[in-house]
Amino acid sequence: MKSHSELHERALELLTIRGIDLDDIADLVLYLQKDYVPGITREDCRKNVEAVLTKREVQNAIITGIELDMLAEEGKVSQPLRDILVNDEGLYGIDEILALSIVNVYGSIGFTNYGYIDKVKPGILQDLNDRSNEQCHTFLDDIVGAIAAAAASRIAHDDPNKSEIMK
Amino acid sequence: MKSHSELHERALELLTIRGIDLDDIADLVLYLQKDYVPGITREDCRKNVEAVLTKREVQNAIITGIELDMLAEEGKVSQPLRDILVNDEGLYGIDEILALSIVNVYGSIGFTNYGYIDKVKPGILQDLNDRSNEQCHTFLDDIVGAIAAAAASRIAHDDPNKSEIMK
Amino acid sequence: MKSHSELHERALELLTIRGIDLDDIADLVLYLQKDYVPGITREDCRKNVEAVLTKREVQNAIITGIELDMLAEEGKVSQPLRDILVNDEGLYGIDEILALSIVNVYGSIGFTNYGYIDKVKPGILQDLNDRSNEQCHTFLDDIVGAIAAAAASRIAHDDPNKSEIMK
Amino acid sequence: MKSHSELHERALELLTIRGIDLDDIADLVLYLQKDYVPGITREDCRKNVEAVLTKREVQNAIITGIELDMLAEEGKVSQPLRDILVNDEGLYGIDEILALSIVNVYGSIGFTNYGYIDKVKPGILQDLNDRSNEQCHTFLDDIVGAIAAAAASRIAHDDPNKSEIMK
Repeated sequence: MKSHSELHERALELLTIRGIDLDDIADLVLYLQKDYVPGITREDCRKNVEAVLTKREVQNAIITGIELDMLAEEGKVSQPLRDILVNDEGLYGIDEILALSIVNVYGSIGFTNYGYIDKVKPGILQDLNDRSNEQCHTFLDDIVGAIAAAAASRIAHDDPNKSEIMK
Repeated sequence: MKSHSELHERALELLTIRGIDLDDIADLVLYLQKDYVPGITREDCRKNVEAVLTKREVQNAIITGIELDMLAEEGKVSQPLRDILVNDEGLYGIDEILALSIVNVYGSIGFTNYGYIDKVKPGILQDLNDRSNEQCHTFLDDIVGAIAAAAASRIAHDDPNKSEIMK
Repeated sequence: MKSHSELHERALELLTIRGIDLDDIADLVLYLQKDYVPGITREDCRKNVEAVLTKREVQNAIITGIELDMLAEEGKVSQPLRDILVNDEGLYGIDEILALSIVNVYGSIGFTNYGYIDKVKPGILQDLNDRSNEQCHTFLDDIVGAIAAAAASRIAHDDPNKSEIMK
Repeated sequence: MKSHSELHERALELLTIRGIDLDDIADLVLYLQKDYVPGITREDCRKNVEAVLTKREVQNAIITGIELDMLAEEGKVSQPLRDILVNDEGLYGIDEILALSIVNVYGSIGFTNYGYIDKVKPGILQDLNDRSNEQCHTFLDDIVGAIAAAAASRIAHDDPNKSEIMK
């Protein structure tokens, strides 16, 4: 059995390797929450992102999704899956399924935040989209958005009265 | 065993009773798809909405969710659930769960469309929000958004090449 | 916003009203885990059941599902939903959906345990099935099975090495 | 955009490569349904298995899951994911998540059938378990069980009156 800390370290390492700073994810959380939680800071958001990343279900989704992105990029995935991943084809929904397993960690209230930033693509999500000519980010962009949505849900659970206006 | 047509009729009837015209849902689909499917009409969208509404899983979610909205409104639901429903409290996620069972009918690619319109609240979704002082729409607004998202997914499955740019 | 403790108390109260003792659920957990966790006691299992019941997502599913069972029994639910609930019709899946939101609290590893005891119906699940002539338990039996499955997942997360043989 | 038929062929091919005959899956469906659908034949079951395999969501789950099994076997997956997959570790739940996306194709009523056969492991599921010393079947066994559960749900939807006793 792999230790929890080994999984945790690897998940953080893979995010770094793929160019994701936890502050970028914290900025997405801030984007989602700033109108609902007066005085919330990027530091508050980052703490919640870090808490999400301690969950094993989240770590499993990260190490599986990013692995598939990288293997597709390296040409080690067989066809037609390789082209599907490299082109982020619209009818392939396994990336959304993995993302949902991340969002679910703090319950179903995070679904709409996830869908929203995945469409609007603020901050790092737009960067990932722009970089997708050179790199395969089919799983990564959904994973990053899902971590941000889960962190926003965590904040809502911590401060239920504020979350009332969040929905 | 209830016949499928009895369920279908009741689901349509409940939407009408709660002030939802299928053209309102078609307009949400048009809002989601117009930039991706050139020449798409409201009629095309309405046909896809109607197809979504023939699915038993969708009908079950509609008749359960709207029933809860109405029973809460009539004061027949016990506390604290009644207040939770009447106030659409932010940490209650059963409405999102029912909505997801609708979106799922055409697969996971609909999750983001659902989340997006639930946040942006175009058209009828804004009306439902405005009317929520007199009526309880805790389930209805999520159900309507989910039907629209499922219909958008159905269009994408019918025309995969267009959906490529949709995601 | 309803306080978390009000929700917690109401969820426990509803289980009691519907004839469910937490020890009955602990016995289900013991049934699921006894071959994998040597020396596990009913008390260990009960503690994990109690921990599952502190989660808001679980409480929301309980107070919504049992409310629907009781309203159907009292004839307050409109047709055809009333008959569907009273007869626990096979193609109605909203009870499974609510159950899954409970199981999900400790991640996807609980899905198979939930499905298994729902089919095999050990202990209290058989009693609920036998009592279903007088009472409506469409949601309750799935909820009870799901709480047991979630508690089993919680044990696995606490003791990963033992869980290795559990799957 | 990959054509639907290319995906379909690849999904069928991968099942064959990994030693799964569609009749083996049909036998699982028969095991699940024989007590509820009098006179059901293996041929009936096989037809429903084949219908499940025409769904794109199912094909995506198959080509992704089996690819991960094979890449892990070939040592092309990085650590610690490789060991997790090769050892089918108990707290890794991405295989269950992919399986659920298959089951979901015919709605939530299939969840319990999936959980049940995944635990009881009749027929080919036991064979896969026995062969797991030489080969990695972390995703394959869940995928096969999920296809069988989805086919059983499809039968229930086709013949609602029989399904009444199925649940």
